[in-house]
Order: sequence, then C-alpha cells, then structure tokens
Amino acid sequence: MAAALRCAQKALEEGEVPIGAVVVSDGRIISRGHNRRTKKQLATAHAEIEAIEKACKKLKSWRIPECELYVTLEPCPMCMGAALNARIKKVCFGAREDKGRSLTREIAGANLLNHTVEVEGGVMEEECSAILSEFFSSMRLREGKKRKNGGDKGEKGE
Amino acid sequence: MAAALRCAQKALEEGEVPIGAVVVSDGRIISRGHNRRTKKQLATAHAEIEAIEKACKKLKSWRIPECELYVTLEPCPMCMGAALNARIKKVCFGAREDKGRSLTREIAGANLLNHTVEVEGGVMEEECSAILSEFFSSMRLREGKKRKNGGDKGEKGE
Repeated sequence: MAAALRCAQKALEEGEVPIGAVVVSDGRIISRGHNRRTKKQLATAHAEIEAIEKACKKLKSWRIPECELYVTLEPCPMCMGAALNARIKKVCFGAREDKGRSLTREIAGANLLNHTVEVEGGVMEEECSAILSEFFSSMRLREGKKRKNGGDKGEKGE
Repeated sequence: MAAALRCAQKALEEGEVPIGAVVVSDGRIISRGHNRRTKKQLATAHAEIEAIEKACKKLKSWRIPECELYVTLEPCPMCMGAALNARIKKVCFGAREDKGRSLTREIAGANLLNHTVEVEGGVMEEECSAILSEFFSSMRLREGKKRKNGGDKGEKGE
C-alpha cells in the first residue's frame, strides 16, 4: 500500500485527485497506476484501470488470477468490475468510500463469471484518507478564492 | 441498436464473443466499439469501454452527459460503472444477463457521484440474443470436437 500511496502522490503532483494503485504478483509489484482522469479527459483513466491494464499486458493475459490489487481508495463499480473481469484474487483498499455506494462487496460477491474477489478494506487507512482530505481541503480553498475573485468581477459586470 | 449489432458482427468475425456498442449524441453515432478481449488479452477491452473512451476523446471530455450508450448485451459492472463515471445519460441494452448478477440497476441507481443513469433493457432483444446464442452453440460444437480428438489422442497416450 505504501507503493500505491507513492502513485497517489504522483497524481497529486499532476493536479489530479490523489489515488494510486499497484498490482502485485507473487509478492512483487508488477504494475502501477495513478488517476489521470483530468489530464487525459477520460472517464476510464482511474488508477486501478491503468494498473490492471499494465498487468494484463505484462503477463500477456486478460486473466490474472494470481494477482492482487492494492489501491488507496475504495474502488468505484467500474474498477471493482475490472478486477472481477481480470479474475484478480484479492483487492486491498485504504480509505473507505464512506457513503457505501461503491457496491464493493456486492460486486465482489456477485459470483458473476463464477469468480469471487476477496476484499480487504482499511489498509493504511489513515495515510490514504489524509492525502485525499488534504487535496479536497486545498481544492475548496482554491475554489473559494476563485469564487471570491469571480464574485468581485461579477459585481463589476465582467 | 442495429449499429451496435453490426459492431457485434465485427467481434464475431474476429473470433470474439459478439458484443457491440455505440455512443449516440444528439441522435448521431459518435463512436463504436466491439469486444476485443481475446485479441488484445486485456480484461478491460469490452465493447462499451472502447465506445466510451472514443466518445470522451472525440468530445475532449471525461464527462459526456448528453450521450447515450447502446450495447447488445446487458453491461457488466465494469462497463455500467464506466457509463456512470462518464455521466452518460442513458444506457440501452439488448440481450439480458439472465442470472441478474450484472447489478445493472443497482449501479445505475446507486447515486454514486450524484448521477443516475437511465436504463432500458431488451431493445432488439431477439436479434441481440440470437448472435450470442449462435456463437456459444458453435463454440460448444468446436470444443466438443476438440475434446473428442484430444480424448482419442489421450487414449493413445500422446
């Protein structure tokens, strides 16, 4: 998870929501990904998708059942579905999607494709949550300043 | 959906499970995709992902709320999640995933990201189901023949 956090840091440096992921096989990291949705203007450019696609390419197989995915935030349905499609053995995530709308366990346990993904949440939760909280705090601060400046301009009719 | 079926036909010609998808904006098809999972050995190479990614690239935005996705088979959680992430307005699918494990409506209505995708199933259902049934029938036939040949060889200890 420490490696996934370093990937999240990379996303942060690029101005993206800081989410990072790695795929591990036989105890070794075989691929890494970080969120690049804004940079690529692509709805699918999540950290997990990048890491899973790179792992498939590396292992030359769409089926990578010996692999585990580590990601700093609870995966969205798209990414959890991708883990299921790749027959990934286990998904470990850090921070929790607190409204429980990710449907993580429902997707993992749907037994779709006769495959069930093992899920472990809350791994290095504090660190994974902190990098996200800091990002959103500073974003709100920036947005607030922008609105304030925009509001001033608005009053002048610009 | 007829256009999505033509994409499915393309997948069939390439030896893939015949699933096709198109993205429509303002009544016009702006992107197409077909299943290429085996050819690309990529767990994410579903018809819907290809069509959504092409649509994002075309519209230069990860957010394409004016778009509708037409796909010949009920989307898996990954693809339904991708439609949600792209803020797609509506998903129309043809054949139904009959065991109800796709969680289509659960994902569409999870109100994750404060966005809900409208879903319509069973559009040109008969045609969409037929192309899949034919593919799986002929695959089973091929597998049966292979096993028979393999079995004969096996008996000879080869």
